[in-house]
Amino acid sequence: MTLQSPLTTDLYELNMIQAYLDRGETKEAVFEYFVRRLPARRGFLLAAGLDDALSYLEGLQFSAAEIDWLKSTGRFRHNLIDYLAAFRFTGDVHAIPEGSVCFPNEPLLRIMAPLPQAQLVETRLINILNFQTLIASKAARMVLAAPDKVLADFGLRTAHGAEAGLYSARASYIAGFGGAANVEAGQRYGVPIVGTMAHSFVQVHDDEMQAFENFARARPDGVILLIDTYDTEAGARKVVELAPKLAEDGISIRGVRIDSGDLAEGARMVRGILDEGGLTSVIILVSGGVDEDVLLNMAKAGAPIDGYGIGVSLATSIDAPAFDCAYKLQEYGGQPKRKLSAGKQTWPGRKQVWRAYDTDGRMAGDILSTETDKQPGEALIVPVMRGGKRIGTAPTLVQIRERAARDLARLPEPLRLLQDGAAYPVEVADDLRNLAAQTDAAVKR
Amino acid sequence: MTLQSPLTTDLYELNMIQAYLDRGETKEAVFEYFVRRLPARRGFLLAAGLDDALSYLEGLQFSAAEIDWLKSTGRFRHNLIDYLAAFRFTGDVHAIPEGSVCFPNEPLLRIMAPLPQAQLVETRLINILNFQTLIASKAARMVLAAPDKVLADFGLRTAHGAEAGLYSARASYIAGFGGAANVEAGQRYGVPIVGTMAHSFVQVHDDEMQAFENFARARPDGVILLIDTYDTEAGARKVVELAPKLAEDGISIRGVRIDSGDLAEGARMVRGILDEGGLTSVIILVSGGVDEDVLLNMAKAGAPIDGYGIGVSLATSIDAPAFDCAYKLQEYGGQPKRKLSAGKQTWPGRKQVWRAYDTDGRMAGDILSTETDKQPGEALIVPVMRGGKRIGTAPTLVQIRERAARDLARLPEPLRLLQDGAAYPVEVADDLRNLAAQTDAAVKR
Repeated sequence: MTLQSPLTTDLYELNMIQAYLDRGETKEAVFEYFVRRLPARRGFLLAAGLDDALSYLEGLQFSAAEIDWLKSTGRFRHNLIDYLAAFRFTGDVHAIPEGSVCFPNEPLLRIMAPLPQAQLVETRLINILNFQTLIASKAARMVLAAPDKVLADFGLRTAHGAEAGLYSARASYIAGFGGAANVEAGQRYGVPIVGTMAHSFVQVHDDEMQAFENFARARPDGVILLIDTYDTEAGARKVVELAPKLAEDGISIRGVRIDSGDLAEGARMVRGILDEGGLTSVIILVSGGVDEDVLLNMAKAGAPIDGYGIGVSLATSIDAPAFDCAYKLQEYGGQPKRKLSAGKQTWPGRKQVWRAYDTDGRMAGDILSTETDKQPGEALIVPVMRGGKRIGTAPTLVQIRERAARDLARLPEPLRLLQDGAAYPVEVADDLRNLAAQTDAAVKR
Repeated sequence: MTLQSPLTTDLYELNMIQAYLDRGETKEAVFEYFVRRLPARRGFLLAAGLDDALSYLEGLQFSAAEIDWLKSTGRFRHNLIDYLAAFRFTGDVHAIPEGSVCFPNEPLLRIMAPLPQAQLVETRLINILNFQTLIASKAARMVLAAPDKVLADFGLRTAHGAEAGLYSARASYIAGFGGAANVEAGQRYGVPIVGTMAHSFVQVHDDEMQAFENFARARPDGVILLIDTYDTEAGARKVVELAPKLAEDGISIRGVRIDSGDLAEGARMVRGILDEGGLTSVIILVSGGVDEDVLLNMAKAGAPIDGYGIGVSLATSIDAPAFDCAYKLQEYGGQPKRKLSAGKQTWPGRKQVWRAYDTDGRMAGDILSTETDKQPGEALIVPVMRGGKRIGTAPTLVQIRERAARDLARLPEPLRLLQDGAAYPVEVADDLRNLAAQTDAAVKR
């Protein structure tokens, strides 16, 4: 149900394909997608989006209506229209698996396909990989900041459209979130869905106590009551008063949610009231303005909070709503390529990333090399698609999530602790440096 | 082709509907959507997204597969499943028209519908209106910063998913952009599509000059050449050298694009080379890191730039990637409502916004009132849907864009000049203040 229109692309891709077809320029092109640099305060990336990217490539074709519309624009000649009408992606793809920790300049994805194919898919591949990796990387910070708490994605409403909400739920679950409020993420990806109640539910009733009771009777399994519509303290006392009455009917209150005010102070006050009232197993969830800094502060303050609903800061990656990233031509017709635009040079050719671990199993450093230049360590980039078809069975979302948990556990301690300025060594191998120099020498400026 | 799954909603909406249906709580509810406060440095909002919001309401229904999936979760009882299987939105909608300038606390949209209906649509309505208004408001700043330049949305690749790219193209066109690179925005909304070429096109060729010539011959109408792949100065000189040869075949170069380096300095250097070469009518477009501050600086510097391609700063609204906004219950079964959560009080009841103009036709101030409390000025909120059907003919995108141009022209000068801290007066009428006091008194805490 995602948008998979082949028209989700930039016009310049079609302009270039027109020019390529006019001259029969259809040799194999190699493009790599990578993040150029980390946003401020970030120490690592968590790769996500590959499965959706591969689904896009597998399913990419133009409908008759889309072809008719392209014709109607009068912008394209028959050779391009015919080419698009018959289009299927038949290339190979290599990638770093989803759920892997990775770093700038390391290719997350490599496309090897006839030039017009590799060009057509540029925009949408970046669109999928940039966003899911962005959210997984943001969510991973939150998971590291609150390792023993349940985190849930509440961000659909302020996500940038429906697909952003869906991808955010998927990517944050990969990073270690417990679930999402977005129902479609449950249907589409099997992300566990979670939900409480809104202030409007309380407001509809003349009496907050009656609202709590009605909600609990309608949702007898694991009811979570929102207690701050009018006054958080009074709300907590009503929960204590209501609990024995519900217990008579076999209904237990699982938790309360606070969505406003000073969260640490509010949670402490509410914990006191619940405990005094014998509700020691009722959990406290909070929401509203939560990000990784709030999570670290709550941990430092020892706030008695069991879980967090996280919305806008997660689903928009609010401190850094996009990566500086690129999908660059690295080779054409067997010749390595790179651009030299001021401040935007890239490493040419097909590449591999090698990762070393120390004796504790922690990540010790990466080497970026040419594809065939074997270096010590684990090779991260693996084949995932051949001739337009996936290789082997795609990992499940749970398997991807397990990989992420494993990789996050192997981060060097300063990165795990989200220390500002913590850096990870990525070395460029000599062979790759030599290739860059040779590539530059071959360009007729 | 947008995601219009009815499952694009938060689980808590379904939880609440279950409780409402269990108790027959289906009286008319009135919800209003509004932005709570402006982000830093912002002075106004530009309303957008209404047409997509109304299309969502009109088309909202559950497929058999979606109903089966909801059943399979085991979370919902038969009464809810049956209700959803037969669901259609039958309510009324009032709204501020798209393309209108507006301000915090002014309802952009009011839903009047049976409570479960009004609740189900909450998440997706916020999702559409928050994002399109966000982008239109950001784009309007860019248009005001560069009123005589052509601006184009290049943001699809780093937009948050395909729908974000599509909505960004629509919203920025409303605000006054000239077009977008996103091909689907052309097909779907009729947004003018624009495009040049990528660095990869130049890199594919062994010789940059040959690349320029091949591209020009393939795209003879209005070709724009990207000249910074290796060296901007050399690129510009090649354009001068190539132009006479192309002219022999009736092909004229419309412009060049620079995507890196110091944009003002680069443009000045390139303008000099082009003019010296007799190419005074060849325009200069730039891209890369452009936002409204860059546009203001380029204007101040008198940089000879004719147009801008704007990507990530537009399509993510990078300085403020979401509004603090709300969809709040204002009335239920004829009783006004509001929540009192710490720091989050809202104005109750159905409201109207009245706008006064000074003798020059500039906006002079707004009054927020109860719906029936007539105040001086123009009433901004109008009926747009009745009984689930649109009222009258929807305005075209061009008409919406004209309204935006008119409203942006009527902004007070400090807001038009994007002066930090410039504020606009929005007064709350006495009747509305009284209603709030009465509403609070009626709540049983």
